[in-house]
Amino acid sequence: MYIAMNRFRVIKERAQDFEQLWLNREIYLHEMPGFVEFHLLKGPEAEDHQLYASHTVWRTYEDFVAWTKSEAFRKAHARAGNETTKPLTIAGPHFEGFHALQEVKADGTKRVLKAG
Amino acid sequence: MYIAMNRFRVIKERAQDFEQLWLNREIYLHEMPGFVEFHLLKGPEAEDHQLYASHTVWRTYEDFVAWTKSEAFRKAHARAGNETTKPLTIAGPHFEGFHALQEVKADGTKRVLKAG
Repeated sequence: MYIAMNRFRVIKERAQDFEQLWLNREIYLHEMPGFVEFHLLKGPEAEDHQLYASHTVWRTYEDFVAWTKSEAFRKAHARAGNETTKPLTIAGPHFEGFHALQEVKADGTKRVLKAG
Repeated sequence: MYIAMNRFRVIKERAQDFEQLWLNREIYLHEMPGFVEFHLLKGPEAEDHQLYASHTVWRTYEDFVAWTKSEAFRKAHARAGNETTKPLTIAGPHFEGFHALQEVKADGTKRVLKAG
């Protein structure tokens, strides 16, 4: 399992606009093999911004890499450019990728994962 | 849905010890109502540290708050103290909580979530 996150420091007065932009965006992720789920997350509030993060779970790191090289990725990001998201944020997106090493499920099962 | 993350900046030479500590730790989460799943994540490498994050998904924010007030939480953190994790890290844990606002699943279903 691999988690791709993009962190956005959003100008507080623009938070509603930022949320609306994501709610209306077509992200094309579900067309990709290995896509598990996507969430738009609202994180902590700081003095000068509201943190948001996009949070995409992939079956493997290789599935994520395939997405970044896909036509769907190109389409999603071309669209993002047209929406001129920049004035909504003071910083970001800042990308962080995470490899899951260990998993605990609600039934108590615990397993070590192969990084990827 | 609510995601509780703790970020740890781990001294690179101690990364294996840090992973081992987590693999051997009993975290008591699956006893809690609303617990969905837990992952230990390995994030980006920086010049002076390796980023790790604990990543716990809760059904709601209220389920997370109930866990922080529980006996299970007290037990898990008392144990963490005994393990003296501090020398493994240059910083952290740094907590960040995230409310999911929007969800896209692998079958393409998209929905707005009530923050919580």
